[in-house]
Amino acid sequence: MAEYIAPTREMKFVLKDVIGISEISELARFQDASDDIIDAVLEEAGKFCSEILSPLNVVGDRQGARLADDGVKSSPGFKEAYAAYAENGWTSVSGDVDYGGQGLPIILASAVYEFVDAANMAFSLCSMLTTGAIESIVAHGSEEQKNSYLEKMISGQWSGSMNLTESHAGTDVGALRTKAEPVGDGTYRISGQKIFISWGDHDMTENIIHLVLARTPGSPAGTRGISLFIVPKYLVNEDGSLGAYNDAKCVSLEHKLGIHGSPTCVMAFGDEGNCVGYMLGAENKGMAAMFTMMNNARLNVGIQGVACAERAWQMAVDYAKERVQGVAIGATKPGPSAIIEHANVRRMLLTIKSTTEAARAITMLNAKALDLGGHHPDAKTRERYRGLADLLTPLSKAYGSDMGVENASLALQVHGGMGFIEETGIAQVFRDSRINPIYEGTNGIQAMDLVGRKLSMSGGAHWRDFLDEISDFGKNLPDRDEFSGLGKNLADAIAATRETAEWILACHMDNMRSALAGSSPFLRLFSVTVGCYLLAKGAVVARNRLDNGDQETDFLEAKIITARFYAEQIVPPTIGLKASIMAGDDLFFAIATENMG
Amino acid sequence: MAEYIAPTREMKFVLKDVIGISEISELARFQDASDDIIDAVLEEAGKFCSEILSPLNVVGDRQGARLADDGVKSSPGFKEAYAAYAENGWTSVSGDVDYGGQGLPIILASAVYEFVDAANMAFSLCSMLTTGAIESIVAHGSEEQKNSYLEKMISGQWSGSMNLTESHAGTDVGALRTKAEPVGDGTYRISGQKIFISWGDHDMTENIIHLVLARTPGSPAGTRGISLFIVPKYLVNEDGSLGAYNDAKCVSLEHKLGIHGSPTCVMAFGDEGNCVGYMLGAENKGMAAMFTMMNNARLNVGIQGVACAERAWQMAVDYAKERVQGVAIGATKPGPSAIIEHANVRRMLLTIKSTTEAARAITMLNAKALDLGGHHPDAKTRERYRGLADLLTPLSKAYGSDMGVENASLALQVHGGMGFIEETGIAQVFRDSRINPIYEGTNGIQAMDLVGRKLSMSGGAHWRDFLDEISDFGKNLPDRDEFSGLGKNLADAIAATRETAEWILACHMDNMRSALAGSSPFLRLFSVTVGCYLLAKGAVVARNRLDNGDQETDFLEAKIITARFYAEQIVPPTIGLKASIMAGDDLFFAIATENMG
Repeated sequence: MAEYIAPTREMKFVLKDVIGISEISELARFQDASDDIIDAVLEEAGKFCSEILSPLNVVGDRQGARLADDGVKSSPGFKEAYAAYAENGWTSVSGDVDYGGQGLPIILASAVYEFVDAANMAFSLCSMLTTGAIESIVAHGSEEQKNSYLEKMISGQWSGSMNLTESHAGTDVGALRTKAEPVGDGTYRISGQKIFISWGDHDMTENIIHLVLARTPGSPAGTRGISLFIVPKYLVNEDGSLGAYNDAKCVSLEHKLGIHGSPTCVMAFGDEGNCVGYMLGAENKGMAAMFTMMNNARLNVGIQGVACAERAWQMAVDYAKERVQGVAIGATKPGPSAIIEHANVRRMLLTIKSTTEAARAITMLNAKALDLGGHHPDAKTRERYRGLADLLTPLSKAYGSDMGVENASLALQVHGGMGFIEETGIAQVFRDSRINPIYEGTNGIQAMDLVGRKLSMSGGAHWRDFLDEISDFGKNLPDRDEFSGLGKNLADAIAATRETAEWILACHMDNMRSALAGSSPFLRLFSVTVGCYLLAKGAVVARNRLDNGDQETDFLEAKIITARFYAEQIVPPTIGLKASIMAGDDLFFAIATENMG
Repeated sequence: MAEYIAPTREMKFVLKDVIGISEISELARFQDASDDIIDAVLEEAGKFCSEILSPLNVVGDRQGARLADDGVKSSPGFKEAYAAYAENGWTSVSGDVDYGGQGLPIILASAVYEFVDAANMAFSLCSMLTTGAIESIVAHGSEEQKNSYLEKMISGQWSGSMNLTESHAGTDVGALRTKAEPVGDGTYRISGQKIFISWGDHDMTENIIHLVLARTPGSPAGTRGISLFIVPKYLVNEDGSLGAYNDAKCVSLEHKLGIHGSPTCVMAFGDEGNCVGYMLGAENKGMAAMFTMMNNARLNVGIQGVACAERAWQMAVDYAKERVQGVAIGATKPGPSAIIEHANVRRMLLTIKSTTEAARAITMLNAKALDLGGHHPDAKTRERYRGLADLLTPLSKAYGSDMGVENASLALQVHGGMGFIEETGIAQVFRDSRINPIYEGTNGIQAMDLVGRKLSMSGGAHWRDFLDEISDFGKNLPDRDEFSGLGKNLADAIAATRETAEWILACHMDNMRSALAGSSPFLRLFSVTVGCYLLAKGAVVARNRLDNGDQETDFLEAKIITARFYAEQIVPPTIGLKASIMAGDDLFFAIATENMG
């Protein structure tokens, strides 16, 4: 089984040429993110991922995390790899410099995440959850809390976990029942059980900082009565040393379809009545703090999807070049052909390639919007990018994760019968990738978020401005044959997105359910429109470079072909979703619930 | 985990009202297939599948077949279940009456297969492979061969296996190297290794009749030099008793993504130099005999896909009715809602339901075409139905198997986080279903078969006649509001299929690769057009029945809504494939092979 090779050339092109990371590194805050640093970070991260993390991917799958008497044991080699990962600074890329972080932009950290995710998705989750916890403490913690936890979390000495779900409260977080009783000294006693807690317990770090959603006595029902608590696995003494065990225990692990290397814990808090929690942020404002954790986590799950797609791509194209079967129609060489010469296999490969690149570009634009939305000196620009980040987050999460699954499945298909054999490795990608459309808010929730909330924010200015930007770009495509079909299909996609978005907003007035009925295909249509735009941007850069004598011909020409393929093959059926979206919800409930099944 | 309930009401509707099984039971040969018999067979098969086979599905997954010193041991309970299965006559439904079979039509056997596949796909494969071997012996065997093998294979006392693939010869069967040396007494000595042999060895039957593709000395290269051999695991004495072990051995089992209960064997023939084979059919005509085995196997794999989709449907709709999360927009009842009340979940469910029913109808029309093509007294009618069966086989196989995977994935998504947990059961369907687009000719091969061979047979008469039939039906839809959108979308789908088919045929003249480049989306477009037609047929029947006072209101109204949903939600994006198909292959090879990846 071939190891993952981080696509550093590709990532540099996306960051520098398509998304424009220079707009970020121009900011005083990110002045360290020079061109050289960007290159060095990508090269070093890629090397670490290929050499250290990728070989452990199959180990995690075969010898998953297990629960022993004294807690969860991670897969062989994971603990050592995590130590090296922290040692090399990969836990601290975008961490706050005041607490030992490198203060690099989110977009660069996101690029690194993609490499880590692709090399070993199960492993990467520990770091992803920790980052979410760090961001919550940064945004909502007191000075004392920040001083107690952040430095060791950013350095990778401690990890974090996010404890939201209970067995009856998944998507409906407001239904949770975990209790937090004040004991009079400012602390709380936590009691309750959480499920689906990734890396809720493990042996890779010396402490785990759990962030736990719970209810204080007398709090309002639903989401307005939820507060967030810091619950360390081991209490932290004033000098920073570790104190007593804090009655926060993994009581069982789930048997999962994939990501076996990532322990999915049932966590019991306060079984012995002795679990101390510290409120993070204001009482009953836990949902806001949770969204701080989750929002970037949603982008990161989208990136995981892209990562799965990239790993699938590498496996599929390698196999298709090696495997010889039959004589391909139109083959130029005599004798048996590698299957990559068969048109049908080529279709699968170019589909994987183009949709992976489109989804990657969306996630990186999303990351840029977070950086500029957070730190651009101009308030209006910040506002605009925040709006763009809000808009793009459900697209990144849902389209990225869907492309992970769809492309893993296509790549498995390219392998023929070998794809179904576990030793080949692509089956693991297929299994692992399947969690991404589910966790951190199912893709259905993302579609509802897009259609029910994001479209109407600021009176719809965010999506209208963004479509205008895309439209202007499309109108100014180079006047060459190779861009004509692309330009037409992009224009059609924009028009379909605009028309359906306006239709949905009109539904907001009188029939929200009708808007929601088409929310998933609308999310897909919007994503493909943005994907087509960003691939076209890359194609224009490539054409200009080639015209100016750039010698990187093969790479740049492939950019143009890939964008055209996406416009020609992926866009048209997606535009067909317009009719489905605008059909509304008339038929959705026409079969009474009791007659379904 | 809920057990599978065979959809007998649904199947009766499809067979009797949509497909018209009465045209088959009117034939003298099938006079036993009376309405009562059809009902009894479906009811009894359904009961056996739900009660005996379904509970063993998870057993086969957890405790897969294993290789012991004395051969392959099937999963716990499988051997006893197979004995009961044979005892109850399920191996002999469509078997030749001259050899103890029940002589019922293929369409009825196909309906039974769907139930068996859905209850326990791994188990069902043994029977499916045996049926393929039986059909080959019936079509190509000598009287002596028929007398030696058929009765015990049809009764289920012996099973069969199909030995085609070698490690370097998968899709490219012609590259195989297994040898058959004549020894002068009319028999051959077989030597070689075959891979991916389902149920190549096991302990469920007392003998296994392997059909093995091999080359005789001096045979032409490629597919024209291949012959088919009968290779029993134990030689058969003249009195029918079992003789010596025949040096045909399973040397290892594959570790697979799914269908763990089905042993996938590496088979070694003649390791001791002592493996006797009997030529089946003429020398060097093995490919034709193989296609006899494979053609019905392709339909059966499509049916397996439908079966996976059906099992996924049952799990998804049950879970969606039980699982309560949040308050659905537009819910009529106060308080938290079952997730089935959320529009997005409803979309997933109706997508599964409608595409499953469409794919099922296609497979059953395919089966009917085989029955009438084989046995209708009128030669012209036989010819027409044979052409239809040829045309529909790649659709059944590819669309059925794709819907199995896509709907298993959607059903997993409906389960949210629980879907990713193996104990829930839907993950097994997702894993098991993934083999169907691969084996018995990958779906890419099906698309090539459709576009490269089937479209041009009889000068294109088969598909033109069939589209004319669909078109006539569409023009005569009842003049009611509820059929107007359906009629329009069906007409658009027919037009797109016709236009692309003509375009493809034109490509046959000068650019076959361009035709093949769009073959997969063309297969999908054609399938969805046929699916829409058959669902619409059911809807018209339902409306007529309701108008005539039929009291089965809920079932019949659901048929109309399901057809409309399919036309409204599934058809439009599929029509969008037209542009992709007709874009041809210009971009497919524009990136040189060495620059791919």
